[in-house]
Amino acid sequence: MKDTLTDANFPRTADQRVYHLGVRPGEVANRIVTVGSPSRANTVASFLDAKPKPFVLNSERGFLTITGRYKGVPVSIISIGMGSPNMDFFVREIRESVSGDLAIIRLGSCGGLVDIRPGTVVVADACVSISRNVDFDFANPESCDEPAYRISKPVAADEKLTNELVKALHAAKPSTSLSDIISGTVNASADRYVDKTSCSHQKFSDDGPVFASFYSSQGRQTSFPDHNEHLIEYLQKMVENLSTLEMETFHLFHLAACWRARSAVSTVERTPLTTGPVTPVIAQSSNPTPQIPPTPQALPNSVIRAAGIHMVFASRKSRDFITPEQVKEVEEWTGQGVLNALVNIDIPEDQMHTSEGSVWELV
Amino acid sequence: MKDTLTDANFPRTADQRVYHLGVRPGEVANRIVTVGSPSRANTVASFLDAKPKPFVLNSERGFLTITGRYKGVPVSIISIGMGSPNMDFFVREIRESVSGDLAIIRLGSCGGLVDIRPGTVVVADACVSISRNVDFDFANPESCDEPAYRISKPVAADEKLTNELVKALHAAKPSTSLSDIISGTVNASADRYVDKTSCSHQKFSDDGPVFASFYSSQGRQTSFPDHNEHLIEYLQKMVENLSTLEMETFHLFHLAACWRARSAVSTVERTPLTTGPVTPVIAQSSNPTPQIPPTPQALPNSVIRAAGIHMVFASRKSRDFITPEQVKEVEEWTGQGVLNALVNIDIPEDQMHTSEGSVWELV
Repeated sequence: MKDTLTDANFPRTADQRVYHLGVRPGEVANRIVTVGSPSRANTVASFLDAKPKPFVLNSERGFLTITGRYKGVPVSIISIGMGSPNMDFFVREIRESVSGDLAIIRLGSCGGLVDIRPGTVVVADACVSISRNVDFDFANPESCDEPAYRISKPVAADEKLTNELVKALHAAKPSTSLSDIISGTVNASADRYVDKTSCSHQKFSDDGPVFASFYSSQGRQTSFPDHNEHLIEYLQKMVENLSTLEMETFHLFHLAACWRARSAVSTVERTPLTTGPVTPVIAQSSNPTPQIPPTPQALPNSVIRAAGIHMVFASRKSRDFITPEQVKEVEEWTGQGVLNALVNIDIPEDQMHTSEGSVWELV
Repeated sequence: MKDTLTDANFPRTADQRVYHLGVRPGEVANRIVTVGSPSRANTVASFLDAKPKPFVLNSERGFLTITGRYKGVPVSIISIGMGSPNMDFFVREIRESVSGDLAIIRLGSCGGLVDIRPGTVVVADACVSISRNVDFDFANPESCDEPAYRISKPVAADEKLTNELVKALHAAKPSTSLSDIISGTVNASADRYVDKTSCSHQKFSDDGPVFASFYSSQGRQTSFPDHNEHLIEYLQKMVENLSTLEMETFHLFHLAACWRARSAVSTVERTPLTTGPVTPVIAQSSNPTPQIPPTPQALPNSVIRAAGIHMVFASRKSRDFITPEQVKEVEEWTGQGVLNALVNIDIPEDQMHTSEGSVWELV
């Protein structure tokens, strides 16, 4: 912790940096690719224009932001780690750092639930959330009449951005690539493990979402009594076109959908409240924002467009894994496809964050 | 991604390393301190014995493991980042990497809900989970009769480990410290933001837990329509002795409680299923485990003891923040207190992971 904070309700450092991502206005563009790991962020960033030299910022809390231009258009690439809490930090802190519209594409990896080969690229039209009901008695399931897991209502991706994404992926795929591109499916996001014997269907419920898990909510078996033995089969029965399973995309779509219906910016009193240490900011760039910017106003009629592409790393049907060589090949052309889709999506001039004083300003 | 995986249900690399933390058997001790950031892990690790030289391992997914001895007893310090998904990865992957009992203390930061000064150290007897109901219509709340947020049943900490922790903290606190130590309270864990105007109580419910948020479920106000204006007041009314708010401790207590009631290790068939890239392991130690160890058996009668200590970084009542100097001072003596509590808790010899071939073996 290097800085004292000024507002514990929406914490920022004195120089306007947000709490977890460590960025400040002028360091993040309206068009954003979000990934889970720094290595994937660096792969996508390798396609940015040489000028201006991309801005790079690592936060103590593990977020990496790279901002530059692609084909002359300002773009940010942000690595957020794993799970919906990190997706929540990302969307909310970016929303407080960028004026106007946001167009966000998640480039993630996933497990394939249906008969899809590893290396396949899947664009989801919609997402559901699978959650662990922490009030279920996992130790004594017989005595409990609550569901162990719940499935949320589906939330749609942005149609326009998704269409651009599918087009751009087909254009970016090299003729030598063995990968298929599938679209029009539903993705499920779960936060934690899900397995498959001796569990009856009344352990699940479709009347609401709860806590989820990479392990318990994804049909994986650990030594814990998770009572998730038939969860995958149940999911496939309940959700039409369900084909992939990962951890973050639902929350991106959910927040974007909440935002779209907003009519005005609230101006409510703020009170201090915080957890976690303050973000010590390590700006590793030769071109940080030159002076402390004002807090941006999220414009009332702005939109957040969200789309998601998932690379299938493992197939539940064939039990096959993707190879490290395939990961490299697929990340490269999908990265270019995602950047092209963002550049192709129209953002009105009055919904663009100012270039003045930004890290993407051409001087 | 450097290695091809062998089992997508519980993924491990060919040399027995788990997927996200990157450790293998013999690299993690039965006694563990877990923290949220690498800097805090390093502060606690500074008190480890000089011999054997502590083992240090960073995973590509942001987990940091440091294992050595404290007063001659093997101890691990593990930084897990933020949110319950990371806590889930940590507990499950450690459970698959260590034989016998586990004693885990979380040393975290929190917001104070009652009249507690920043710098106060709070030991929770129990935790509740606060969750965002993603099926609630946040854009059109009037049309929705579901609760926007839910509070789970409380889950207790391990009594024995908590008692040792309180004793050890009082002994470790320097006479010059201005911090108070409070115990016997309830902590709430939320994964994302919570604010406080114009929202009626029917938006909340005590009939089950849902999705939570540092922002929406912690009474913080962002530009999103979160309908969390009275959530903190509601929480205080519903949960007796509630005094702190953070993000990870509930899930630690929940998994430990699920484990304690187990009667046998399940031996069910495993099927491949995975998300996320494989953990490329960077072992930064001069003393890694010398050879590939066998997969450990979680003993049927083993226990997981869990306790949590939270340093108050901000007070909701006084609007005060902790200073960077206070953080340093409090982290140092609480770190020593936590290590002493772990050393003082008894673990039967037949529930200890073997030292043979481990990184803490004295040669």
